Amino acid sequence: MAKKLTSRAEDYSAWYNEIVAGADLAEHSAVRGCMVIKPYGFAIWEKMRDQLDKMFKETGHQNAYFPIFVPKSLFEAEEKNAEGFAKECAVVTHYRLKTDPDDSTKLIVDPKAKLEEELIVRPTSEAIIWNTYRGWIQSYRDLPILINQWANVVRWEMRTRLFLRTTEFLWQEGHTAHATKPEALEESEKMVNVYSEFAQNWMAMPVIMGSKSESERFAGAEETYTIEALMQDGKALQAGTSHFLGQNFAKAFDVQYTTREGKKELVWATSWGVSTRLMGALIMTHSDDLGLVLPPRLAPIQVVIVPIYKGEDQLDKIREHITPLMESLKSKGVSVKFDDDDTRKPGWKFAEHELKGVPLRVAVGNRDLENGTLELARRDLNTKESIAFADSADIISVRLEEIQESLFDRAIEFRKENVTEVETFAEFKDVLEKKGGFILTHWDGTGETERAIKKETNATIRCIPFAEKPSAGKCVYSGGESNQRVMFAKAY
Amino acid sequence: MAKKLTSRAEDYSAWYNEIVAGADLAEHSAVRGCMVIKPYGFAIWEKMRDQLDKMFKETGHQNAYFPIFVPKSLFEAEEKNAEGFAKECAVVTHYRLKTDPDDSTKLIVDPKAKLEEELIVRPTSEAIIWNTYRGWIQSYRDLPILINQWANVVRWEMRTRLFLRTTEFLWQEGHTAHATKPEALEESEKMVNVYSEFAQNWMAMPVIMGSKSESERFAGAEETYTIEALMQDGKALQAGTSHFLGQNFAKAFDVQYTTREGKKELVWATSWGVSTRLMGALIMTHSDDLGLVLPPRLAPIQVVIVPIYKGEDQLDKIREHITPLMESLKSKGVSVKFDDDDTRKPGWKFAEHELKGVPLRVAVGNRDLENGTLELARRDLNTKESIAFADSADIISVRLEEIQESLFDRAIEFRKENVTEVETFAEFKDVLEKKGGFILTHWDGTGETERAIKKETNATIRCIPFAEKPSAGKCVYSGGESNQRVMFAKAY
Repeated sequence: MAKKLTSRAEDYSAWYNEIVAGADLAEHSAVRGCMVIKPYGFAIWEKMRDQLDKMFKETGHQNAYFPIFVPKSLFEAEEKNAEGFAKECAVVTHYRLKTDPDDSTKLIVDPKAKLEEELIVRPTSEAIIWNTYRGWIQSYRDLPILINQWANVVRWEMRTRLFLRTTEFLWQEGHTAHATKPEALEESEKMVNVYSEFAQNWMAMPVIMGSKSESERFAGAEETYTIEALMQDGKALQAGTSHFLGQNFAKAFDVQYTTREGKKELVWATSWGVSTRLMGALIMTHSDDLGLVLPPRLAPIQVVIVPIYKGEDQLDKIREHITPLMESLKSKGVSVKFDDDDTRKPGWKFAEHELKGVPLRVAVGNRDLENGTLELARRDLNTKESIAFADSADIISVRLEEIQESLFDRAIEFRKENVTEVETFAEFKDVLEKKGGFILTHWDGTGETERAIKKETNATIRCIPFAEKPSAGKCVYSGGESNQRVMFAKAY
Repeated sequence: MAKKLTSRAEDYSAWYNEIVAGADLAEHSAVRGCMVIKPYGFAIWEKMRDQLDKMFKETGHQNAYFPIFVPKSLFEAEEKNAEGFAKECAVVTHYRLKTDPDDSTKLIVDPKAKLEEELIVRPTSEAIIWNTYRGWIQSYRDLPILINQWANVVRWEMRTRLFLRTTEFLWQEGHTAHATKPEALEESEKMVNVYSEFAQNWMAMPVIMGSKSESERFAGAEETYTIEALMQDGKALQAGTSHFLGQNFAKAFDVQYTTREGKKELVWATSWGVSTRLMGALIMTHSDDLGLVLPPRLAPIQVVIVPIYKGEDQLDKIREHITPLMESLKSKGVSVKFDDDDTRKPGWKFAEHELKGVPLRVAVGNRDLENGTLELARRDLNTKESIAFADSADIISVRLEEIQESLFDRAIEFRKENVTEVETFAEFKDVLEKKGGFILTHWDGTGETERAIKKETNATIRCIPFAEKPSAGKCVYSGGESNQRVMFAKAY
């Protein structure tokens, strides 16, 4: 707490790491690439999870749980999925340790306990789930299946960053099965819309919805929809994806149903997911050089009350004075904390709550008691105002709403300034280097051009935005025909 | 649905398996010993989890998340824990698969991707958590740490049964750190009491609280408290445990704190957990030969309304008629489903909802519309009554409360009949064989006697009940001195 954060201008990456550590969100563990999510960070994730879970249930989904292990042979079944995922993964080969005969304080793998078939710690669950669905689906009456799972997954990442890219992470994965192609397409569109609504209304994070180009699709998908957010350093972050999987998994796992007319048909699939990566997106959308900034709807503590006092008597008086306010706030559903820790000075507490992104701070001292006032500080603007104690519960509720809106407005303003239309490749490189952000430009639709641009600039097609209207043009790189602008950016 | 369940009298074990399958609770997966928890089963588990989570938070705990992998060396640190757990576990030895050079459709483990140190899929998290706590605890101001984690764990079981014993299961594990021994002891007692309250008030399952004998303690604990429930077949089921770990983990991971006086002291620990095993306990406490019986507080659907109709017109009339009732129930917090599936007959639906343990079933037909009545069926008693439509919302609420209570009363009555005090070993064996249940008897306190009894009868000491008053006696097996009765039973 003593030391100031590195500023964003100085070193964005260091600033990010210091916020994650300083605000007690997460830390690295003894296992390479795996994180410990600390209580304060986990409380934010719980709020995200609970709201998403509510939205999934409101759209007709149910939760279930499938095994963490996937037998190797199931991975082999869907070729592209295997290609995309099974390579960098945690492989369980044995089921027993034994005491080292040479050193009784050590454990060694028991060579007798080798598994006949290796098990993969799930990097994603399509294979195990579609293998299960085969047993659940016989007739059209068994469809649709609308299931979601909250789970941990493991992908062996070489370079990790807390929340953004970790070997183990927490996520939800929806896996649905449908009788027809239009129904499955509708489902995948519906869910990317749910993600967009969540990002905008709860995280106060504007996103651009669109389709991925073929090379950026999920391994095994025929169409991938995405929400792309813009971080403060001008890089894009893919915040959630929803996949139309066609009949690929139904084919791989032989999942057929009998139609009303008695015919056998392959089942259509979708899958969709968001992960603890959203924590990284949240941090990098709103926070500032003083620390974390949280939208009130996701803040574990929305209001902190810091007493300014000398001695127990004054503290008791303040406590008594603010008790009705605390109760009134709680009855409005506002989460409020009275920080009466007597081992810390007010200045220390102010800095601590700033760093942790508590949206509103109330300071109350002897003079406020006399004057019937409170000092109210807004974390998003870092401003203070003196308010009448009598109106304080109402004012606080209003301010929380204002902060939620104002964070979204600020973020969308920032994004508007950072979407640039370019016509030439020189301009493309110039914008990318000097300004960053999203670049809207024409592309000839080939993977070849996409790869060439990526190789030369490190920028990728983030999506083909749903909102982008058809317009004839020439590809920024090859000069070939194009009928729509797509969105490029460097990405996390 | 067509076929009747095997009766409990006929084959209790087959009956259990058929309920788990028939009520759509869970099934075996493609991974040996791992289960798929199906949506209906998961909805029950979610209700348990949410209530427990609320109780943990009300007692001051916060959630966090720690890695699924434990490096082998961390396991070696606490000797008894390693002895008890690290032996039968899933061991990750490699982090990559590659395409089989001899068959491009197959994947093989890449021998180049061998881990320097093997990773264990957590069977429990004391080791990884206490290794983390070392970094979190410096001074008395950092204590207590009151953390809970909801997670999946893996123990390589040779013989598995859905919910009761599976290789992977879901659980919560509390891990707390304290400055003093009395505080840690108080915490472990508090949490076994939370479990008992949950079991009795939510699961309607009576439990006996007590301490484990040394041989039945958690590996690494100095004291294990347990709640023991009695299943309908006369066997005990350990439903939750809370451990006082002394300073064992603080020693193993060198976790010390500076006291107010500036001295260095080792930290005191507890851990406590319940798992998806509770699902098995719930099933075997209340269910009958018609299927699952659920206490209303844990039932995903508390009331199902089945329309008895011919044609769309009658169905529409019934729907319109019962809509205000549905709304009134929902506003009381009752979860209600209108089963208007027109591909199934009422008789099929009745059997289905019976099998799934829906506490109350309402049947409503044309005649009920005319007479202003409804038919209300209670799942716990399998009785029906005709009620006035005008009072139905109130009556249904009252009945739900009655069912919750009556299930508990029935279970406690059953248990009372099945706790037997015995004085001789002949009697012990006779009761165990002919009646089963809990046996209260004197024990000389030695592991030798405990092992001998187990070897001869398969019964173990379930606990030394908190409620059992000291009384002088002779050990049922050795004749040695004893000053308290302990509780024996055969157990799941």
